[in-house]
Amino acid sequence: MKQDTKQKIIQAGAKIIHRKGYNHTGIQEVLKAAGVPKGSFYFYFNNKEDFGLHVIDFFNNMLLGMVEPVISDKNISPVRRLENLFDLFIEIFQTLDYTCGCPIGNLSQEMGDLSPAFSAKLTDAVKLMVEMYKDILDEAKDQNLINKHITTKETADFIVSSWHGALIRMKIVKGIKPLELHKRFILNSLQYPAA
Amino acid sequence: MKQDTKQKIIQAGAKIIHRKGYNHTGIQEVLKAAGVPKGSFYFYFNNKEDFGLHVIDFFNNMLLGMVEPVISDKNISPVRRLENLFDLFIEIFQTLDYTCGCPIGNLSQEMGDLSPAFSAKLTDAVKLMVEMYKDILDEAKDQNLINKHITTKETADFIVSSWHGALIRMKIVKGIKPLELHKRFILNSLQYPAA
Repeated sequence: MKQDTKQKIIQAGAKIIHRKGYNHTGIQEVLKAAGVPKGSFYFYFNNKEDFGLHVIDFFNNMLLGMVEPVISDKNISPVRRLENLFDLFIEIFQTLDYTCGCPIGNLSQEMGDLSPAFSAKLTDAVKLMVEMYKDILDEAKDQNLINKHITTKETADFIVSSWHGALIRMKIVKGIKPLELHKRFILNSLQYPAA
Repeated sequence: MKQDTKQKIIQAGAKIIHRKGYNHTGIQEVLKAAGVPKGSFYFYFNNKEDFGLHVIDFFNNMLLGMVEPVISDKNISPVRRLENLFDLFIEIFQTLDYTCGCPIGNLSQEMGDLSPAFSAKLTDAVKLMVEMYKDILDEAKDQNLINKHITTKETADFIVSSWHGALIRMKIVKGIKPLELHKRFILNSLQYPAA
């Protein structure tokens, strides 16, 4: 029961933070959205930062849960799975009317200078994403589906960071173009030793 | 005199917003940093959003002022000027201990969903930056210094958005690597028709 309420607060907070950012989100607002009595916040969290760190874990698990089934199906070629992953993300943001962006990217931008604890947790989250792309690129390289001179770790790193940049652009132009450009640019670059 | 005070408020605000974000910056805090009496804010600005829009103009002018001398020297090859521009930015962020990031990228992330007025102004600012990169890529293409199949507008677009992504990553890892990777990835991709 205690865990349920804690989880409810984290979920409600994640939804608001995804849209408005961390600093702009008030604790009372989160408790109200969660339907949890005022004043119970400090029963579950040491402070707002502690709550924020739990929200990052929640985002990260959500993201990995979405991605896992798309990338793990070994019946599909690794390059095709990469394409499918990009398409999945593009579809999600179409459904969201090109709002919100990636919660991990957003919080990196917002909190990178303000909280070393956030930075450390966000760096870990990014590492997992990079690792996931690296694995799929390694598979593609082993199967001679991409240029053999590509360094998969660095390319994976660039895929994630440039994706966060594409999402930032999406938020102001409110359209699909930056996401499609990212997909095309990355997929093309896999044919060349770009990193 | 009136203009001086207004400018002082904008400059002080820009400095704080660059570090802490727009929503996290209080008007009183800005006036205090500017050494301007409390209560005079609404003499110069209609509201906080109006102030924020002036701050975007300030950032944009600052950015263009920094970039212009590096990119306009026609005695240097356009590809070399592009490299010099990346190096200039990398140097700036070294000096800033890898904090802050690009104010235009930051505000796009923070305000893209929250203020259509911000989005419109940020989109204009990004367009100018993209245009600048496009011009230099067109020059390079005319001189056969980069792959002739490159579409310069889209490549310029991707340079700017992936740069914003690299800066986000920089903020959490507090290091030069994401910026160097961006430079290398982009410069290599110019030899291939990646977009």
